[in-house]
Amino acid sequence: MKLATADLLALVARRLRRGGMASTNARLVAETIVAAERDGSRSHGLQRLAGYLSSLDSGWVDGHARPVVTRRAAGMIHVDARNGFAQVALARAAPLLRRTARRTGVAVLGIHHSHHFAALWPDVEPLAADGFVAITMVNSRSRLVAWGGQTKVLGTNAMAFACPRRGSPPLVWDQASSAMAQGEVLVRAAAGTPLPDGVGVDRDGAPTTDPTAVLEGGAFLPFAGPKGSAIALMVEVLAAALTGGRFGFEDASVGIAGAVTSNAGQFLLLIDPAAMAPDGFTDRIEALIGRLRAAGSERLPADARYARRARAAVEGIEVSDAMYATLLERAGRRR
Amino acid sequence: MKLATADLLALVARRLRRGGMASTNARLVAETIVAAERDGSRSHGLQRLAGYLSSLDSGWVDGHARPVVTRRAAGMIHVDARNGFAQVALARAAPLLRRTARRTGVAVLGIHHSHHFAALWPDVEPLAADGFVAITMVNSRSRLVAWGGQTKVLGTNAMAFACPRRGSPPLVWDQASSAMAQGEVLVRAAAGTPLPDGVGVDRDGAPTTDPTAVLEGGAFLPFAGPKGSAIALMVEVLAAALTGGRFGFEDASVGIAGAVTSNAGQFLLLIDPAAMAPDGFTDRIEALIGRLRAAGSERLPADARYARRARAAVEGIEVSDAMYATLLERAGRRR
Repeated sequence: MKLATADLLALVARRLRRGGMASTNARLVAETIVAAERDGSRSHGLQRLAGYLSSLDSGWVDGHARPVVTRRAAGMIHVDARNGFAQVALARAAPLLRRTARRTGVAVLGIHHSHHFAALWPDVEPLAADGFVAITMVNSRSRLVAWGGQTKVLGTNAMAFACPRRGSPPLVWDQASSAMAQGEVLVRAAAGTPLPDGVGVDRDGAPTTDPTAVLEGGAFLPFAGPKGSAIALMVEVLAAALTGGRFGFEDASVGIAGAVTSNAGQFLLLIDPAAMAPDGFTDRIEALIGRLRAAGSERLPADARYARRARAAVEGIEVSDAMYATLLERAGRRR
Repeated sequence: MKLATADLLALVARRLRRGGMASTNARLVAETIVAAERDGSRSHGLQRLAGYLSSLDSGWVDGHARPVVTRRAAGMIHVDARNGFAQVALARAAPLLRRTARRTGVAVLGIHHSHHFAALWPDVEPLAADGFVAITMVNSRSRLVAWGGQTKVLGTNAMAFACPRRGSPPLVWDQASSAMAQGEVLVRAAAGTPLPDGVGVDRDGAPTTDPTAVLEGGAFLPFAGPKGSAIALMVEVLAAALTGGRFGFEDASVGIAGAVTSNAGQFLLLIDPAAMAPDGFTDRIEALIGRLRAAGSERLPADARYARRARAAVEGIEVSDAMYATLLERAGRRR
């Protein structure tokens, strides 16, 4: 069946409440799930609901967490997510973060003791829609073999960038430091589709194209070898060491039945371009984009998502019968 | 012959003065050339001297530029490099930048109307040695075909990251957004060594392994396809649009005989980790590095450079007879 975005959002939020989340927290997490599904980021959409519910049900993550926001310096804000989802921590800090960036020109947000199980672009797109340039990074459970290494240490460590445009939704990209995002490997495992070469290794460290072998005891490889590994290392430093969060290799979720989210950290940088470039920052962005399109790059990052979003606004979002049944489950606890 | 670092530095600075640079400016540029040569970053070492002299001689860059530093917000500093080299602008702004980051927790520096023809790591390593986390990005003349594109728009757009360690020189990486750095392609062109697949295209847009075909009318490809292209785009936005600098496709150097440096911009982010993570940031970095080494990543980014630096301190830096003759040239102007 097809559901309107608002209706699907209400159903997902209700299911998360029944799974053990406070109302506000459930709404914030539901928004990122539904946004991903609506925009065609299927690997971070409804497919992830079971993982959220499983982590909640295991007791590993606190669905009722009330994040604690602290200003650490004039341009620096910290949030203790209190073992809840990172979206809740970001939402709690966002008003102060925006005021700080407007006043100081730049602001850094560090979130620790947080679980980020979603796409990263929903965190930065609204900030860029309000005129900020934003960069964010999230570390996660060890899944990636660093360049030169034999066993996994780093997470798949995603990074996202967003930049305001003039009269169009923001320029946004969001990418994992692994050769393939974990969500995409999950999709292939579910579909039984093999991986390209260079994506992962099995539990013995041998190259494999079997997504299940990578997910169960194996590991991911960084994109572009040493360069992707360098990016993953930067993410680990900024999202974990700087924020006081746990490194991927310190996450204890692997040993807890049902826990699929990582207790880690998130870094976010917010820049007010109006402070640096008072005359026409977005005009300059349009000039750059115009040139890129003229050179043949017709589809910029996020364009495909915006197109699917527009279609979803008209046609609704397709939901399978099985997923609809899951959404209607009354049980607060799953088997 | 072999020269001590200080002696080589004096010779390079003198040659740059004779090539048309003010004394202070010449010293700052010479430091990055000699640092690269000393550390084995040959592509950004003495091999670049001819390019600096050529750009100076053409009148395209101002060797006597006096950068103008302006505070734009509590955490935001801008430098008009006045058509000089970026190292001079950074040096002029560095004291204010450091004070700002100490006070605010974070500072952003935007440099525009600048020429950066050097490795990027010398810009951030000293900041990390003083306890800051630093990220910098530089755009340059159009050389890169963005993902999905047919012709070049972006520069090879390098990015560098540096992070303090406890009792060791900083963790530093520095990488181009192209599949291979321009300097490395120059080295291969000089040596007549072919390129690997996926590095570049010729003037007709056809894939080529000929380094000369890439450099003369051809173009570079981004590393890792869409992911490297996304990084290159971010660099173009932050180094050019944010700072008020020229995009790579706006650089006019191609039309000026002898001009090999680009008039572009530079972005630098400085974070004081002591403000965010008061207890033991560098202890955490050591824990991460220890784990990476235990997993087999024995050589971290910059390790090879530090090893060559230590060797150069004992053995001196090898300089060819031809380069020594160039260094001793008395002519203020080259043929």
